[in-house]
Amino acid sequence: MDLKTYLEEKRTLVDEALKDFFPAPQGPAADVFKSMAYSLFAGGKRLRPILCMAGAEAVGGKGRAVLPVACALELIHTYSLIHDDLPVMDNDDLRRGKPTNHRIFGEAVALLAGDGLLTEAFRFMADPDLTRDLKPVSLLQVIRLVADAAGCNGMVGGQAVDILMEGKQVEPSILEFLHTHKTGALSAASVASGAILGGGREEEVAAITRYGRNMGLAFQVADDILDIEGDSEKLGKGVGGDARKRKITYPSVMGLESSKGIQRTLMERAIEDLRMFGEKATPLRKLAVYIIERKK
Amino acid sequence: MDLKTYLEEKRTLVDEALKDFFPAPQGPAADVFKSMAYSLFAGGKRLRPILCMAGAEAVGGKGRAVLPVACALELIHTYSLIHDDLPVMDNDDLRRGKPTNHRIFGEAVALLAGDGLLTEAFRFMADPDLTRDLKPVSLLQVIRLVADAAGCNGMVGGQAVDILMEGKQVEPSILEFLHTHKTGALSAASVASGAILGGGREEEVAAITRYGRNMGLAFQVADDILDIEGDSEKLGKGVGGDARKRKITYPSVMGLESSKGIQRTLMERAIEDLRMFGEKATPLRKLAVYIIERKK
Repeated sequence: MDLKTYLEEKRTLVDEALKDFFPAPQGPAADVFKSMAYSLFAGGKRLRPILCMAGAEAVGGKGRAVLPVACALELIHTYSLIHDDLPVMDNDDLRRGKPTNHRIFGEAVALLAGDGLLTEAFRFMADPDLTRDLKPVSLLQVIRLVADAAGCNGMVGGQAVDILMEGKQVEPSILEFLHTHKTGALSAASVASGAILGGGREEEVAAITRYGRNMGLAFQVADDILDIEGDSEKLGKGVGGDARKRKITYPSVMGLESSKGIQRTLMERAIEDLRMFGEKATPLRKLAVYIIERKK
Repeated sequence: MDLKTYLEEKRTLVDEALKDFFPAPQGPAADVFKSMAYSLFAGGKRLRPILCMAGAEAVGGKGRAVLPVACALELIHTYSLIHDDLPVMDNDDLRRGKPTNHRIFGEAVALLAGDGLLTEAFRFMADPDLTRDLKPVSLLQVIRLVADAAGCNGMVGGQAVDILMEGKQVEPSILEFLHTHKTGALSAASVASGAILGGGREEEVAAITRYGRNMGLAFQVADDILDIEGDSEKLGKGVGGDARKRKITYPSVMGLESSKGIQRTLMERAIEDLRMFGEKATPLRKLAVYIIERKK
């Protein structure tokens, strides 16, 4: 299989589903819908939804069947970017080559758009019009998993440490906490959600969750490295921002060469985690390689 | 029955459950847990949780059984207050007689605490450790209902209009949109969630939802009136802020006397909506009267 074609096909499916599920801007609050849509349709890689679909396929399920949850994960990812970019957080002007949400809609609407996307994500996962083919008990399990991964014990906790530790000297344990929580948790929940909804057995879900954690962490280390070695045009955002803001990154704490070793080890571990799935996990295996070799 | 005793008993139950369910501050992100807890345990009236429990009782269910959802509603309400108070929104320094969250923890942590509370609310509703006695299908129905009421088609939409229309001349239809969305939607979802989880029939849930809408709107009109006629010491916050900020309120659009008439009509309609429930709805009836006569 060709990974590029696979990613392209899946991304198209996700984009279509998002357009289909997402409410049309209407009424006196139309601006907040527009602001939500602006960031949601700004050309994201749709990595988390693809992980979710590939997770379902790895256990013999259908990727298409988990689309409402896959889309919900993209809404959560998008909300986190909008809030992270706000002046009180990272104060970024560019995202994916376009002005950040608050630069277009103002800070108040951007804040509310983030809140709206996060809330809408849970609506997607519980709306019987979208999820009628999925088991209620599995959906509840997934909602719990996603909420855990996105909340104060997951992504929000990671983001807090990212902000609180800016400019400080930290132990490698804090660095690992930051990255496993900020990116790793939601990546793991994405692929695990797919495996749960796809009907995976307990040990399959456990193995795929380990894959998601290693893969998500590798992704974040790769992101840190790209902020040093990447091409700002390909990335659609400035480079060197982490160093300027004295962010805690793998290169800043562990050194650049050591970070490259770490991302490779994580990638190899992620692939190792997929052993029991055979052929059906080929996309997930190729994804693990892709995310550390990508240029954007 | 004595409403004051009823409210007192229920509030104690909610406070105990919140303490029980809420995660202890831990790890490098402890500040964000502390920030969440600061606002959650700042002495709120717990009106939405009480509505949820009273809704369950009105259809013959047990209030105690719906506590995880009742608490989730309080988390959502608390998140909305933290985000509303931020400088980019209402820029308030006082809430319930104490400094607002961002005045203590800074804007970045306050923003994240709001995000964390909103996310944790959905975790509460889906966590089998908390909700094992509730039916999965009913829980999903409630999650969908609450997400709808809290999101861009509900509270977030209302808040957006509140901010976007500040200082503008508006039609009464915009005023009604604002208040039904900003406060009415989550109040209606609170009491309806209780009725669903308490095993209410479809027409019972429908009637109780109408009660919640009328009652929630009456509550907001009363809030607007208190901002003019209230005692800042009893309220624990300054008065006159709406007029200073040129907020859209019932008194500013409809006049003070007319607003008093409207809140009374809404209260009477709310009581009318409860006809089919007999004795079991006594607390909800008394609550409708209380919320327009309260001084804080």
